[in-house]
Amino acid sequence: MISTRLTERFGIQHPIICAPMAYVTGGALAASVSRAGGLGIVGGGYAGTVGGEPDLETELTRAKPGKFGVGFITWALERAPKMLTKALQHSPSCVFLSFGDPRPFAAEVRDAGAALICQVQFLSQIDIALEAGAAAIVVQGSEAGGHGATRSTFPFVPEAADYLKRRSPGTLLIAAGGVADGRGLAAALMLGADGVVVGTRLWASAEALTPKAHTDKAIGKTGDSTIRMKTLDALRGVPWPREYSFRCLKNKLTDEWSDREAEAFRAFGKLSAKYAQARAQNDLDMVAVVCGEAVGLLRDRPSAESIVNSIAAQAAILLRGGGTLKFTPQS
Amino acid sequence: MISTRLTERFGIQHPIICAPMAYVTGGALAASVSRAGGLGIVGGGYAGTVGGEPDLETELTRAKPGKFGVGFITWALERAPKMLTKALQHSPSCVFLSFGDPRPFAAEVRDAGAALICQVQFLSQIDIALEAGAAAIVVQGSEAGGHGATRSTFPFVPEAADYLKRRSPGTLLIAAGGVADGRGLAAALMLGADGVVVGTRLWASAEALTPKAHTDKAIGKTGDSTIRMKTLDALRGVPWPREYSFRCLKNKLTDEWSDREAEAFRAFGKLSAKYAQARAQNDLDMVAVVCGEAVGLLRDRPSAESIVNSIAAQAAILLRGGGTLKFTPQS
Repeated sequence: MISTRLTERFGIQHPIICAPMAYVTGGALAASVSRAGGLGIVGGGYAGTVGGEPDLETELTRAKPGKFGVGFITWALERAPKMLTKALQHSPSCVFLSFGDPRPFAAEVRDAGAALICQVQFLSQIDIALEAGAAAIVVQGSEAGGHGATRSTFPFVPEAADYLKRRSPGTLLIAAGGVADGRGLAAALMLGADGVVVGTRLWASAEALTPKAHTDKAIGKTGDSTIRMKTLDALRGVPWPREYSFRCLKNKLTDEWSDREAEAFRAFGKLSAKYAQARAQNDLDMVAVVCGEAVGLLRDRPSAESIVNSIAAQAAILLRGGGTLKFTPQS
Repeated sequence: MISTRLTERFGIQHPIICAPMAYVTGGALAASVSRAGGLGIVGGGYAGTVGGEPDLETELTRAKPGKFGVGFITWALERAPKMLTKALQHSPSCVFLSFGDPRPFAAEVRDAGAALICQVQFLSQIDIALEAGAAAIVVQGSEAGGHGATRSTFPFVPEAADYLKRRSPGTLLIAAGGVADGRGLAAALMLGADGVVVGTRLWASAEALTPKAHTDKAIGKTGDSTIRMKTLDALRGVPWPREYSFRCLKNKLTDEWSDREAEAFRAFGKLSAKYAQARAQNDLDMVAVVCGEAVGLLRDRPSAESIVNSIAAQAAILLRGGGTLKFTPQS
């Protein structure tokens, strides 16, 4: 078993957290990850401010009786802050906030006895997370599926480690983006992280709420087949802050719009009806199939429990072997 | 000392290669890296087809008497293939080709007794490199400075490792993009690489041909301050294949053009005179200061020899420590 500050402080067995993916990480997935010794975080997403999300309280109930957390898109939570209050009544062990200013919510989280985890996409966002009293900071690389930004996991993690060492050495550092197996966990620990957030690999787990048609389309694709672009939210009229972009599988929609950013922002919401229609028709050429670059490491859709156990076991083998300083090819 | 297939087959002490950076990796830098036990590769860049490059034969002479290699931008070498012939007369131990089809040059490299190293930016390019008989394949992540593409080092390396294991297990795999210290080397080995290519960290070494004004501007910046964009070459009229883009420090030029790709391609060459003038005037707001996201890990401009030794020593400590499976924060 791999022991880090994350496993010690959060009382878990493996330094592996399930990303709180909107529309994807329901209670069943979170519970499965926690049963395996990781930490499952239910995706509260847009806090009910955008249509079609699963009922959060139902999912939080499903996540019990083990340890679980809840996550929100911070700028959306600002529009429905009572969703945090409701979620905290379920006694999550942590609240995971990303994409916005966590400070207005920090006191309520602390008073409820939950740990605050803040995900950042830029080094410059760490100070606000520290002001909010984050117990852990997740640095999310551009590799990740769905919303994110431009920093890459590989150089972002050590730079954030250096920054925290100077500014707040007691704050944990967690790597997100591109971690899908034990090699990724071992590498993240070498880069200075205390643990990892796993998204795409658990997006394709049996317990995820992901539509089967989406994982069927994704599995077997290489990492070459995803793209990060800014135009999607502009076109469909979702008011994401301009610094964030979206990674999904390349398809007709992304071919048409990926290099027309300025135009898409001028045409804000122009495609919203068409996009809603494509989604209703499950037209995977014209809606986003959300996954990260690590899609190239997926071969199947097994249980989340087996995924977490396999990541932890593979990382332990690699780390033990690395101690010999003799490397022969492995996978 | 860290032993991998790269150190064994190339007869070097550390699995660390100096990127053949155009305009930057001259003979002095290559020689210094090789003296430290890595492998220095002189940047043959555009093979003299674009103005302002240092004289390649002079630099190759400076790289001796130790082991050294030579690198070219493949699509440019197609326009001046005799430059390869001239370079091979200096008996480099390897030829490093990136950005184009290496197959037309493979026989000449092999006949000269040099190892062929092919750098790829997409998984889909590996087959061509294998057809060319590459001894090693470098997968370059988007983190890298200068030209590159969209894949990220963290998920790209393990995916390429799996691919090579199935298709050509004897071919070495090397990680490029974002590697600037021992944490990066240790992480790359965990991800399945046999070694690393280091660019940005050596771009800011004492022996590099990098103008001092450029490293002065870059050192102290965080990794948030670089950007990858496609528009630069279109604007300055350099005919790079459309799949490649360019990472540099954000400045007035990138602020003005980063989100106007389609427009820049329609205006091919429109800014070439203005760009040349800015370069002549050393106007760092309007020319590209080329460096990778790992700029956030730079604090100084020491000798390349000390950089290589420090990367190797730090990686060895981390790998030994990792074998205990107990992680406490380090940097």
